[in-house]
Amino acid sequence: MTYKFSKRVPDPKNDAVGDILKAAADPKVTSFAGGLPAPELFPVQGVKAAADKVLDEKGPAALQYGSAQGVPELRNVVLKRLEVEGIHTTADHVMIATGSQQSIDLTGKMFLDEGDVVIVEKPTYLTAVDVFRSYGARFVGVDMDEDGMKMDSLEEALKNNPRARLIYTVPTFQNPTGRTMTLERRKKLVELADKYDVMVLEDNPYGAIRWEGENLPSLKSLDKTGHVIYMGTMSKIFSPGLRLGWVVAEPKLLKRYTMMKQSADLHTDSFSQYVCAQYFTDNDINDHIKKITALYHKREQLMMSAIDKYFPKGVQHSNPEGGMFLWVMVPGVKDSKELFNAALKRNVAVVPGDPFYGSDPVPGTFRMNYSNTPEDGIVDGVKQLAAALDEVMSEPATK
Amino acid sequence: MTYKFSKRVPDPKNDAVGDILKAAADPKVTSFAGGLPAPELFPVQGVKAAADKVLDEKGPAALQYGSAQGVPELRNVVLKRLEVEGIHTTADHVMIATGSQQSIDLTGKMFLDEGDVVIVEKPTYLTAVDVFRSYGARFVGVDMDEDGMKMDSLEEALKNNPRARLIYTVPTFQNPTGRTMTLERRKKLVELADKYDVMVLEDNPYGAIRWEGENLPSLKSLDKTGHVIYMGTMSKIFSPGLRLGWVVAEPKLLKRYTMMKQSADLHTDSFSQYVCAQYFTDNDINDHIKKITALYHKREQLMMSAIDKYFPKGVQHSNPEGGMFLWVMVPGVKDSKELFNAALKRNVAVVPGDPFYGSDPVPGTFRMNYSNTPEDGIVDGVKQLAAALDEVMSEPATK
Repeated sequence: MTYKFSKRVPDPKNDAVGDILKAAADPKVTSFAGGLPAPELFPVQGVKAAADKVLDEKGPAALQYGSAQGVPELRNVVLKRLEVEGIHTTADHVMIATGSQQSIDLTGKMFLDEGDVVIVEKPTYLTAVDVFRSYGARFVGVDMDEDGMKMDSLEEALKNNPRARLIYTVPTFQNPTGRTMTLERRKKLVELADKYDVMVLEDNPYGAIRWEGENLPSLKSLDKTGHVIYMGTMSKIFSPGLRLGWVVAEPKLLKRYTMMKQSADLHTDSFSQYVCAQYFTDNDINDHIKKITALYHKREQLMMSAIDKYFPKGVQHSNPEGGMFLWVMVPGVKDSKELFNAALKRNVAVVPGDPFYGSDPVPGTFRMNYSNTPEDGIVDGVKQLAAALDEVMSEPATK
Repeated sequence: MTYKFSKRVPDPKNDAVGDILKAAADPKVTSFAGGLPAPELFPVQGVKAAADKVLDEKGPAALQYGSAQGVPELRNVVLKRLEVEGIHTTADHVMIATGSQQSIDLTGKMFLDEGDVVIVEKPTYLTAVDVFRSYGARFVGVDMDEDGMKMDSLEEALKNNPRARLIYTVPTFQNPTGRTMTLERRKKLVELADKYDVMVLEDNPYGAIRWEGENLPSLKSLDKTGHVIYMGTMSKIFSPGLRLGWVVAEPKLLKRYTMMKQSADLHTDSFSQYVCAQYFTDNDINDHIKKITALYHKREQLMMSAIDKYFPKGVQHSNPEGGMFLWVMVPGVKDSKELFNAALKRNVAVVPGDPFYGSDPVPGTFRMNYSNTPEDGIVDGVKQLAAALDEVMSEPATK
């Protein structure tokens, strides 16, 4: 039968990323394509102890329906994480979401009508593009350099797009580039959001995983007018399997989030919220973050030195001070998919750049993840990828 | 500041149900307002054993990102539950959702454009109305009697509404009425859905909790053309705190659900999916369902006999063969809120009928939940409610 779908439903043929991840899941393939944490560092024993304690001490509450805003114990844990980001606030400003993805979804649902504009980094987090598009958004991309979004380009975009409703940014160790926005630009961004009266969605999944440079204040901590909505997650510092994220906003705005959240899934998993809160109470999360940071740093260094050694001349990459991703730019490639296919033939997967662009993809770009591949796989994978690049770069252009 | 919300965002002043549940949460109040399972029956020790086993045997997988379609072990558990409903299918027809609420949300998002019509029972599950409204739906209510939706009224609605995109129904132990649709009407509904080419969303959270009468086949099991989307949940037979529901549809349609689900929250909590699957593997869920059924039956009998004894003459109530709710109809009441307030003054809460109607509320109706109140509370609460009804029914109409 033929279904009469709403305008929001994408054609499954366009699930390019799904297809990539499926190809990358082949056990033969060394995948730099995903964005997964290193599973060997998951605090399995700590979670077990926390789960036992929660079930012993508050079993019925952990298995019962809960409030849409989230378990108070976990909201208090979040407040401590927010302190690190320079955000000094109270639990009535915090809502627990079913992972960061839900925070993005609810924000799109709340702020976007058909034809509204979302201003994004160029490139940006691809699944955010999918979500905003499902609410009828158009995208305006803002140029970046190694210091993040360019502010003159942002102001231009704001000036030219009166229907801009949202600036979506990952200011620290951005996905996909690994780049971090400077303090000066952060201040300017907050100022522009106020000047043009546009909301900012600050997405900070990776900020805690820093091995170099100084912590920079979050946009939210610089915001005096309430234009910045901050979102964070447990996925990179604890576990992504427990779908736990948070939205931080003024109580008046948070009330709407809570209503929309209730419509979306009533509330986030009670059991996982209690278990996570218990784990954070009984363990020093900063010790754990240090271990994650050390391992990812080692893997990043290894990947970058292998790239510098084996990749053809002219290939550029970002140089992140933390997070999980490298961004690679290959000159003279017309079609990023060609790159992907050449790599896959050699059993290596990356994500070609196109889907990371809300508009006007830059060919010859791709994202590499280093957090999820053991050290020997990194070197071998980069060698194979280098061979694929040699092939693609030396080929005469096919169009 | 003033926010520029999308058209989807409801006014927080309209959160009538939120206000009711907040009032009902006062520990002084005997609440028949919620829809919560009896927490004393949650299988806390079984969940603890399952959680320990999952973390010992597949800890990293349980804490890692997972697939949008859900953990295979849990989808296999769901297949066994579906057999009970007469649905003989395969795991590629099943997607795990973050509770039933998400199944409803995704369905609304996928099938409804602004101005489309959803056909609902009159009355219907109130949070479904909220969700569908957030996608711009209009509602057409179909009259019910003790045998469920009236089929002549449904056909009339289908004939008159070419923009009908969805029939939403809770055919068994309906929320809020506790009524069950007869086999004959089930067959007719499926036939009409095919004839008018309209999708059916069959929501079956309570079907397993039956103490009287025969199991009836699900609409999905009667459907030969793929018009019925079936949804179920762990909330009433296991735990609602672990947000676990499922959608059953043709693989072609399920692929779209999976894409929309990925946009909404990437995937459902991995840890909870594994724990639930482990619990179902190591325990006989039918034994557990028997305990739930026995307790709810006892409470329902107690509530109905107290109602028959204490409520004023002329008050009618439904007579469910299972589930969690009674529906009460009070003659001569113009304003259901008046009823609610009179009850709350006596420290008893119910949900007045208005929000359960997609359109044209019937005054003097309310929903009573019996699953969540211990036996002594039921009798005392009904007595107080009877006094409130006496007051409201004897008052001269104020308008």
